[in-house]
Amino acid sequence: MKQSKLFTRTLKEEPKDEVSFNARVLIRAGFIDKLAAGIYTLLPLGLKVHQKICQIIREEMTAIGGQEILMPALIPKENWEATGRWENFDALFKLGSAELKQYALGATHEEVVTPTVGKYILSYKDLSLAVFQIQTKFRDEKRAKGGLIRGREFSMKDLYSFHPDEETLSQYYKIVQKAYFKIWQRLGLLDITYLTYAAGGAFSKYSHEFQTVAESGEDTIFICEACKLAINREIIDECSACPNCHNTELVEKRAIEVGNIFKLGTRFSSAFGLKYLDAAGEEKEVVMGCYGIGPSRLLGTIAEVSHDAKGIIWPEAVAPFRVHLLSLKEDEETEKIYKDLLAAGIDTLYDDRAEAQAGEKFTDADLIGCPYRVVVSAKSLREGGVEVKQRAGHNLEIVKISRLVEFLNRQ
Amino acid sequence: MKQSKLFTRTLKEEPKDEVSFNARVLIRAGFIDKLAAGIYTLLPLGLKVHQKICQIIREEMTAIGGQEILMPALIPKENWEATGRWENFDALFKLGSAELKQYALGATHEEVVTPTVGKYILSYKDLSLAVFQIQTKFRDEKRAKGGLIRGREFSMKDLYSFHPDEETLSQYYKIVQKAYFKIWQRLGLLDITYLTYAAGGAFSKYSHEFQTVAESGEDTIFICEACKLAINREIIDECSACPNCHNTELVEKRAIEVGNIFKLGTRFSSAFGLKYLDAAGEEKEVVMGCYGIGPSRLLGTIAEVSHDAKGIIWPEAVAPFRVHLLSLKEDEETEKIYKDLLAAGIDTLYDDRAEAQAGEKFTDADLIGCPYRVVVSAKSLREGGVEVKQRAGHNLEIVKISRLVEFLNRQ
Repeated sequence: MKQSKLFTRTLKEEPKDEVSFNARVLIRAGFIDKLAAGIYTLLPLGLKVHQKICQIIREEMTAIGGQEILMPALIPKENWEATGRWENFDALFKLGSAELKQYALGATHEEVVTPTVGKYILSYKDLSLAVFQIQTKFRDEKRAKGGLIRGREFSMKDLYSFHPDEETLSQYYKIVQKAYFKIWQRLGLLDITYLTYAAGGAFSKYSHEFQTVAESGEDTIFICEACKLAINREIIDECSACPNCHNTELVEKRAIEVGNIFKLGTRFSSAFGLKYLDAAGEEKEVVMGCYGIGPSRLLGTIAEVSHDAKGIIWPEAVAPFRVHLLSLKEDEETEKIYKDLLAAGIDTLYDDRAEAQAGEKFTDADLIGCPYRVVVSAKSLREGGVEVKQRAGHNLEIVKISRLVEFLNRQ
Repeated sequence: MKQSKLFTRTLKEEPKDEVSFNARVLIRAGFIDKLAAGIYTLLPLGLKVHQKICQIIREEMTAIGGQEILMPALIPKENWEATGRWENFDALFKLGSAELKQYALGATHEEVVTPTVGKYILSYKDLSLAVFQIQTKFRDEKRAKGGLIRGREFSMKDLYSFHPDEETLSQYYKIVQKAYFKIWQRLGLLDITYLTYAAGGAFSKYSHEFQTVAESGEDTIFICEACKLAINREIIDECSACPNCHNTELVEKRAIEVGNIFKLGTRFSSAFGLKYLDAAGEEKEVVMGCYGIGPSRLLGTIAEVSHDAKGIIWPEAVAPFRVHLLSLKEDEETEKIYKDLLAAGIDTLYDDRAEAQAGEKFTDADLIGCPYRVVVSAKSLREGGVEVKQRAGHNLEIVKISRLVEFLNRQ
């Protein structure tokens, strides 16, 4: 895309009404815009990253048999009453209609998925099964100062699994854990993301979170580096050693919860009377699990953990563009290179702005954070090509124009 | 996909609480599920069709320079007050928060897009520009009996354009009209969809709708077949002849509004103080247009206009699968064919259900409505291949297994 056509632009200064780093840098770089506290618009660059994050999650959920659906956000009061959460879930946004019906906006979807999928579960032959959606969620957060980390409106991938018994749930639960690690790997977060034991709530002793180490994180975790496991502070009193190796020399760090997985047991199937006939013809309750990841939160998390003083450093898999191509008054030559890159399928942001100075173009490239910066200048042409620099590195390299596509494809 | 793995199944009977055909057939065929009046879940088959519709729309909007963004559904009261619509837009779902902030759920997004995009419009050099989103909308509809045609929660593609003057708006307005016709063509709706003059509201004398002829349509239009134009009944008293050829022999038909385009003029830019500096350095108001299409409504519309007594007949571009492959107790042979089809990139639903009888498989194939039904049976194998039938036709054809991929690719 030509940058002169992109309707957003970077801002000279950071917004003054944001305390979180992710919101400040993403607004300044033109990825998001703030509508109200905890409520953001995804601008073209931000939406591209968000779509790439969603697609990675979608692929990994499909790979473990998840079937994608899309549930509504408007959920009738009756559904919440069936589980007792109309009164007890304090972050629900509730609303009425002209016809005096009452709804709450979906903050989570057990109250919809259980009766909906339940219609298709009759016998043990229909189990196990898993469905997921990528959808907008709403929570009436009291504090909404975390930018994309804690929004009032945010995106969520929620997978729900249905099983004949605890054992098959436990097996699938481990399969989801593995899929989640694949996702962190593809997002470039694997090294700093820990499977973390946390409070289980009503359904099991512990639940599991995935926590990404970040100074700005809301959570505190205690890490066993040897086992790549962690314990959330909320349970450290009852569980003060690594659950695997029993090591008590744990390292305390701040972290952002990027995913969580719960064994729901029969909590929701019981509330909605979701039963099945087993092989012997006996009626049994379906056993459920639920598994969340927040794509918009991940967008904010990557900005928090992958940046330097100049701006964001996007991992290649989710970068808005792979290449940021800068023309320093060499538009004719650069236009040709731009066409070659597009023809080779290399997604490129081409800074063709006539009025922008070289310094402004360099500053923008660092702030926006595409993995490769390719500069076409009189100097680079004299030296025989274009100047290539990785956003994450420091080396400048002159690459012949005729070899540029090959060079990038080899990386 | 193997049908035995699909968690949904077709229903023997139509749901009794639905009056609209589209909801009845889509629920029975397993494409959607009803959560409450006007509120539906998209099940795997329905979501696939919906994603294909969205992708066609996205491609055509991108082709005319639309930049995709994603705006929030929670819109603060102040934004609606700026345009006077907090009180005057009677289908708004309003809600409060624990912190006593008030919001309305987005029924339309002029109140967000104008101030958001406005931040990036300073001078005439920034104009014209167009942005769009594909997003969930909410309207507190009094009657919600139209299935996907009139929902309380539904998907919408809304494009907004920003211009320096009326003339450039008018030029872009025509470009969008053309893009809309391309969309109707790709969706198989071109022949029965009419550019229709309708009441313009406060901003211009007439607006334009796109109306698809359907017996169940909520609207009545008067068609000039020669000019492929129509007039909505709401303005027939003041505009009783074809606006193009002045023919008064118009044909009255029922229709579904599948798209609309409005010249907003300065209605919203004025409310939000959205101005720009022209080439002479004078401050002027930005002129806007808005352009809607409802993907979920289109899903319902296609079901309404493209079906027979046995079920839905999906146009190829949006069908959940291109091929429905039926094994009549020839699983070994069919499994091989299934793999060949997948390897050739032909999206296939494989009815591998061991317990289902031949009649049930045929009934399901007609109800679900994939463009090609391919049957593998002892009889077809004796005749030298598989039996291919188009959902929209009546001919049965025996095609050699070795030639099946080529046969389908030639269609």
